[in-house]
Amino acid sequence: MKFASRFVLAGLALGLAMSDAAAQTERWALAIHGGAGTISRDEPAAEITARREALTAALAAGQKILEEGGQALDCVEMVIRLLEDRPEFNAGKGAVFTHDGSHQLDASIMDGRTLLGGAVANVSTVANPISLARLVMEKSRHVLLMGKGAEQFALEMGIPAVGQEYFHTDHRYKQLQEALENDDYGLAGKIEWKYGTVGCVVLDTQGNLAAGTSTGGMTNKRFGRVGDSPIVGAGNYADNRSCAISCTGTGEVFLQHTVARSVAAMMQYGDQSLEHAVKHMIHDELSEGDGGLIAVSKDGEIVMEYNSQGMYRGAADSSGRFDVAIWDE
Amino acid sequence: MKFASRFVLAGLALGLAMSDAAAQTERWALAIHGGAGTISRDEPAAEITARREALTAALAAGQKILEEGGQALDCVEMVIRLLEDRPEFNAGKGAVFTHDGSHQLDASIMDGRTLLGGAVANVSTVANPISLARLVMEKSRHVLLMGKGAEQFALEMGIPAVGQEYFHTDHRYKQLQEALENDDYGLAGKIEWKYGTVGCVVLDTQGNLAAGTSTGGMTNKRFGRVGDSPIVGAGNYADNRSCAISCTGTGEVFLQHTVARSVAAMMQYGDQSLEHAVKHMIHDELSEGDGGLIAVSKDGEIVMEYNSQGMYRGAADSSGRFDVAIWDE
Repeated sequence: MKFASRFVLAGLALGLAMSDAAAQTERWALAIHGGAGTISRDEPAAEITARREALTAALAAGQKILEEGGQALDCVEMVIRLLEDRPEFNAGKGAVFTHDGSHQLDASIMDGRTLLGGAVANVSTVANPISLARLVMEKSRHVLLMGKGAEQFALEMGIPAVGQEYFHTDHRYKQLQEALENDDYGLAGKIEWKYGTVGCVVLDTQGNLAAGTSTGGMTNKRFGRVGDSPIVGAGNYADNRSCAISCTGTGEVFLQHTVARSVAAMMQYGDQSLEHAVKHMIHDELSEGDGGLIAVSKDGEIVMEYNSQGMYRGAADSSGRFDVAIWDE
Repeated sequence: MKFASRFVLAGLALGLAMSDAAAQTERWALAIHGGAGTISRDEPAAEITARREALTAALAAGQKILEEGGQALDCVEMVIRLLEDRPEFNAGKGAVFTHDGSHQLDASIMDGRTLLGGAVANVSTVANPISLARLVMEKSRHVLLMGKGAEQFALEMGIPAVGQEYFHTDHRYKQLQEALENDDYGLAGKIEWKYGTVGCVVLDTQGNLAAGTSTGGMTNKRFGRVGDSPIVGAGNYADNRSCAISCTGTGEVFLQHTVARSVAAMMQYGDQSLEHAVKHMIHDELSEGDGGLIAVSKDGEIVMEYNSQGMYRGAADSSGRFDVAIWDE
C-alpha cells in the first residue's frame, strides 16, 4: 500500500518534472566486497593481484548490466556468482573448510522493492548459493532454508549437486590444517577470521535497490554455526526507502547488532545520512577489527567502511566512477 | 565502552538521587505470550481453560522471580521452560510435527545489558531449546547454532538427548495428518499457521532487559525452513537502551521486516514511544493476520499488540498488574 501510493504520487509528479525523471532513470550505482579483515600489505603480490583482478572483472560485469538497464536483483546475483566461481574468495568455489573437512556455505539476497528476502545456511552441495537464495525468495514461500533441507530444495529446483571436491583449494586446506594444529577453535575466546565473504549492493536505473551476500563461513567451523551472511537484517538488507547493505566480518557481532538493518533504520527513522549511519555502526557500535560493510543509498550514494586492517572492495556508478581498493589507498 | 561509561555516570549520579534510585530498583515488568493466530472463540472450553491456566502459572512464576530481585535473563529462561514443558503450546513438549513426522525446534534469548544473543534452529533432541540457546550465548563464542551441530553442542554441554516420542501429542499429530491430507504445504501460496510459539520479555529490578522466544515451527515443515523465532533482531530483541521484544506469527514476514529490531530502532533512532513503534510495525508495516508481539520498555511500559484474531498473552508488573488474555477482552 505504501509503495503503491508512492507510485501514484510519482506518476502525478511526472508531468511536472519530466526532465528530472529522465535524469533519474540514467543513474545507477554498484558496490562490491570480497571481505574485510587482517589483510597484510606483505602478502604475496600475485595473490593480491589476483584478487584485485577478480574484483575488477566482477565490477565491470555489474557495470555492463546496469548500463544496459538491467535489474538490481539480476546484477547482484550475477556479480556474486562471478565472485563465488573464483577460488580467491571465501564463497562458492573458494569456501573454507569446516572442522570435519567439509564445506558449509551461506548466502542471502534481498529485493528492496518488496522487502522479500531469500537465504540458505549450511549448504554443502551447491556451487552458487546466491542463486539458491534467490530461488528461495522467488519460488518458495520461505525466507530461510538450511542444511540438508535446503539441499533437497535445490534438487527440486533442478540445481545439480556438486561433491566436496568442487570446493577444494590448497590454500584453504592449509588454513584448516593450521587451525587444527593451533587448536584455535575452542568454544570460548575471540574468533579469528580471515577475509573472503563476498557481497554486492546495487541501485538500478529504475530506482530499485538490491543486496546480496555469500560466504563459506569460518575455517574449522563446528556445531552448525551460522553467522550473519544468511540472515536478512544482519549481513544483508535492502529497502527502496533507504539503502542496500552487505556486511563482512565477525558474523556473531554483526548478527547481534543486526548491522544492516540498523543502518537502514537510522536512515528511515532517524533521518540520518547513509554515511553518518554507516560510520556510527562501524566505529561507535562495533569494535576495531570486527569488519566492514558496503552500502548504496536510494539516491545512489556509495559508502564503504571498515574497522579492520583492510577490505577488498570496488565501486562504480553512472558518473563514471570505477575503482577497486584493499586498504586506505 | 558505552555501557561502562553509562555505569560511571550512574555511579556519579547516585549520591544526588538516592531516593530516585531506590524507587527505580523496585520497578519490574513482565509479559509473556503463547502465540498469536486464528483463535476461535468456539474452541473447546477445556482447551482454552488449560492454556489460560498454563499462562497464569508461568506468569506467577516469573512474578515471584522478579519480586525477589531475580535477574531478567533467569526469569525469561525459567518462564519459557515452564511453557515449553506444557503440551498446550507449540514449543518444547507440544512442538508441531514436520513433514516427515519428526520435530524441529527453534529458540533464542537475548541479554539487553550486553546485546549478546544465543539461539538454536532445527534441533530435534532437546526438550528445552531456550536453555540451549542460553548456553550458546554464555558458553560458546557463537550466536546461532543449528541442526545436528547444535545437538552435538547440547551433548557437550551435558544436556541429555530426548527421543522424538517425548514431543508426541495427539492433537499435533492430528494437525499433521490434516495438513498432509489437505496437501496444504506447497512451495507457493500463503502459509497457514497456528498459534503456539511462546515468548517472554522482562525488565528486572536492576533495570536490565531480556527477551526469549521458543517455537516448534510450522506443521508439515520441509526443506529445513527457519522462521523468525531463532533470529536475533527478527523474532527476538533486547537492548537496555530501548526495549525487549518477542514476536509470534508468520515467521517469514517477521524475518524480512526484522520486526523486533525495527521496534527497538524506532525508539532508539526515532525517539518514538514503545506503543507508537509497536503499533506502526504491527498495523502499518505488517498485514492483517500476520501475528503479534509483546514488548516491555526500559521504563517498564508493557505493550502487547496483534493483527490476528487473538494472541495468548499475560502481563504483570510491580504496580500490581496481573492479567491473562486471549482476544480483545
